[in-house]
Amino acid sequence: MNTDPFSKLVFELSKLPGIGEKTATRLAYFLVKQDQATITSLSESIVNAKTAVHLCSKCFTFTDVDPCRICADSRRDTAGICVVDKPMDVHTVERTGTHKGVYHVLHGVLSPLDGIGPQDLKIRELLARIATAETSETPVRELILALNPTVEGDATAIYISKLVKPLGIRVTKLAHGIPVGGVLEYTDRETLSRALINRLEVM
Amino acid sequence: MNTDPFSKLVFELSKLPGIGEKTATRLAYFLVKQDQATITSLSESIVNAKTAVHLCSKCFTFTDVDPCRICADSRRDTAGICVVDKPMDVHTVERTGTHKGVYHVLHGVLSPLDGIGPQDLKIRELLARIATAETSETPVRELILALNPTVEGDATAIYISKLVKPLGIRVTKLAHGIPVGGVLEYTDRETLSRALINRLEVM
Repeated sequence: MNTDPFSKLVFELSKLPGIGEKTATRLAYFLVKQDQATITSLSESIVNAKTAVHLCSKCFTFTDVDPCRICADSRRDTAGICVVDKPMDVHTVERTGTHKGVYHVLHGVLSPLDGIGPQDLKIRELLARIATAETSETPVRELILALNPTVEGDATAIYISKLVKPLGIRVTKLAHGIPVGGVLEYTDRETLSRALINRLEVM
Repeated sequence: MNTDPFSKLVFELSKLPGIGEKTATRLAYFLVKQDQATITSLSESIVNAKTAVHLCSKCFTFTDVDPCRICADSRRDTAGICVVDKPMDVHTVERTGTHKGVYHVLHGVLSPLDGIGPQDLKIRELLARIATAETSETPVRELILALNPTVEGDATAIYISKLVKPLGIRVTKLAHGIPVGGVLEYTDRETLSRALINRLEVM
């Protein structure tokens, strides 16, 4: 590896997800062209975010305050917990503006082949949270499992459901179907099949 | 704009070329997950590259030493200068391993609509370089204009050619044709037309 500062920058940038050597080189050329203030602002914001951000003690998403802004928001319905794989998914669901409840981040899904079992996820913490809520004013009524529809995601959903359903809590998962604005022609067979099975009444 | 450290990082990252808010968010989540050493290494390499990198006094590419490694390399043929738009293009041409000469970076192309005239580019410096070489052991024999085949790139090529050809210097530009591995069916009409006009003898 070259050790000049420019090659070092390309090397560091190419470690980022989805950024190959070509994009890293383009970014590096862009960066060295910027003024000092832009560079300082970028490098400081990277360090500051890393320093300030930790896991929320309630929902385990990334946050710089504890509890996180969502958990601390009294308008959120704590009886409905949306369970997601990773902190980024909180952001994605939140952007829909549809979920009025709170979140719980598992930090992964069950994956026996990768040696990831229930003890590696925040499942114990989820159960503890449900147990604590049970004795409070607002017990948990529903878990919305917003996990990716993969083998691992589905297995994790089934695992959590088996633990939680006996407690009398409703467990739901995201609907499958044709994307909004999608066309039948380009919808894969499996998705179309699920859309047919879960068809809705026309109002 | 949110002022928490995480949103600030997303905001800074989304200033990078080709990185929208969605990618910036994904990168930010990736970064806060990394260990402290990775973060320090990245942020320092950004600052170091910016601090160390300046323009080569000969060819005007980005470099941390002066003259740059290519200009300082005695094995390079200084009689052949490849003229490019921007420093990134030096990298791109260099990766082919085909050009044994040196480079000259214009830092743009002529674009009257954007108010970019000859005085805004390193054209005066190119002429000075040719004049200096004239009195040395290795006068410039050829300028390879490796500019993008756009209206602006072509206009810049013609402008430079008119200035330099009277000095008895050969001026060439990149060949047009079908990309290697390309297929006729997917080649645009203009490219195919140029490939026909500039057809080569079969050996």
